[in-house]
Amino acid sequence: MSGPDFQKNPLIPAIAQDFATGDVLMLAWMNEEAYRETLSTGRVCYYSRSRKKLWRKGEESGNVQELREMRFDCDGDTLLVKVNQVGGAACHEGYRSCFFRRLSADGLTFEIVGERVFDPAVVYGKS
Amino acid sequence: MSGPDFQKNPLIPAIAQDFATGDVLMLAWMNEEAYRETLSTGRVCYYSRSRKKLWRKGEESGNVQELREMRFDCDGDTLLVKVNQVGGAACHEGYRSCFFRRLSADGLTFEIVGERVFDPAVVYGKS
Repeated sequence: MSGPDFQKNPLIPAIAQDFATGDVLMLAWMNEEAYRETLSTGRVCYYSRSRKKLWRKGEESGNVQELREMRFDCDGDTLLVKVNQVGGAACHEGYRSCFFRRLSADGLTFEIVGERVFDPAVVYGKS
Repeated sequence: MSGPDFQKNPLIPAIAQDFATGDVLMLAWMNEEAYRETLSTGRVCYYSRSRKKLWRKGEESGNVQELREMRFDCDGDTLLVKVNQVGGAACHEGYRSCFFRRLSADGLTFEIVGERVFDPAVVYGKS
């Protein structure tokens, strides 16, 4: 295996991890074009499944992800993208990580464990 | 949103992260049954898409994952599972993490960055 296998899976999940802190920031998807663009530009580009087009992370908010390191897993079907998260927040809700909801032990409730870095209403001009 | 939405997506990607070190260990999938079993037993259970059944991680190798914390993301379509990886290796190839292949800057080559914790031939009885 020499890299992610886009023949087998045209869309591959990509885990974004903060290079400095190790925080898992988000999970998104890459097709081969997004993957190649990410490597050639050094800025992380995903493929938006809902919008069905390339998603240059931070294009609107300015919170781009600078590529520090890219790994692929033993099955060639998942990517791990280590990044520098410009602006400090990966989540469109203004949190550092999209995983800011921690479940209780029984899974019935959750608490917010992240800190809000920006106000989405200001950044995206909507509430 | 009060938890992962299995109505929208019957299979949800689950990122396993080492609770102590922050290393991303692997990505697998959970259906609602695997998710509930993980919460109720405190041992991570996935759903194997290839075998089409519950996959109690470590059942064969003994390298179970003890649940430390579970989070879900802002869209309710990804889980982050923080674990204690018994045996020190999550990957069936004997590495701590499944992401032991790091790509070169141009993506054309890779190097092994992980350390082999066990020999798969011994643990699984095959080479």
